[in-house]
Amino acid sequence: MVRRKENVRVREVTHAQNGKGQVFFHDWLLPEEAAHHGRVFSKVVIPAGSSIGYHQHIGEFEAYYVLEGKGLLRDGEDVTELNPGDMNLCPDGSFHGIENAGDTDLVLIALIMNQLDG
Amino acid sequence: MVRRKENVRVREVTHAQNGKGQVFFHDWLLPEEAAHHGRVFSKVVIPAGSSIGYHQHIGEFEAYYVLEGKGLLRDGEDVTELNPGDMNLCPDGSFHGIENAGDTDLVLIALIMNQLDG
Repeated sequence: MVRRKENVRVREVTHAQNGKGQVFFHDWLLPEEAAHHGRVFSKVVIPAGSSIGYHQHIGEFEAYYVLEGKGLLRDGEDVTELNPGDMNLCPDGSFHGIENAGDTDLVLIALIMNQLDG
Repeated sequence: MVRRKENVRVREVTHAQNGKGQVFFHDWLLPEEAAHHGRVFSKVVIPAGSSIGYHQHIGEFEAYYVLEGKGLLRDGEDVTELNPGDMNLCPDGSFHGIENAGDTDLVLIALIMNQLDG
């Protein structure tokens, strides 16, 4: 099955996890297509000035993989810059958040999967 | 946890699934970090002239999401061009394969996950 770009669902989320501005989720793989695995399999576009607020994952984990732009990640007690090719893994029970720290879109792949071995 | 680009494992596979040339798998999320979900969570770089041969998935499914370049996808009986933003879902039991149909790298995200609801 092929889904063309124009048919990929895009969700515009305002103040994502109490973050700033708008964030766009391009849900290229839908949760119902990945039954029992998780709820987010998306490309996430965080425009300059926007962020995803600091939040916890419970019963699930999230992986970010940066494609474009510059991010400022809060990962537990650490704050660090993320650049293309870098990844962040937020395990079950942990917190993270990310903001665009540059002048261009911050683009990343985000996967939120259930903690099957918990 | 943060893994920097230089620490992301890169596998160079020659004749991937009996395809042409070399294909590079950037395994940004390792299978052991996504326990019980699947075996591939990667960025795949298919240089011009290279391909992943036509192959079947059994007990698992695979999703491709194109980031860059132009691909020629064989999806069961169909052959179609894939461009950035397009996705292909190969369900449990089905076949697919993809070749670079352009002059620049074909770059995609590939997820191979277990068929949990089979």
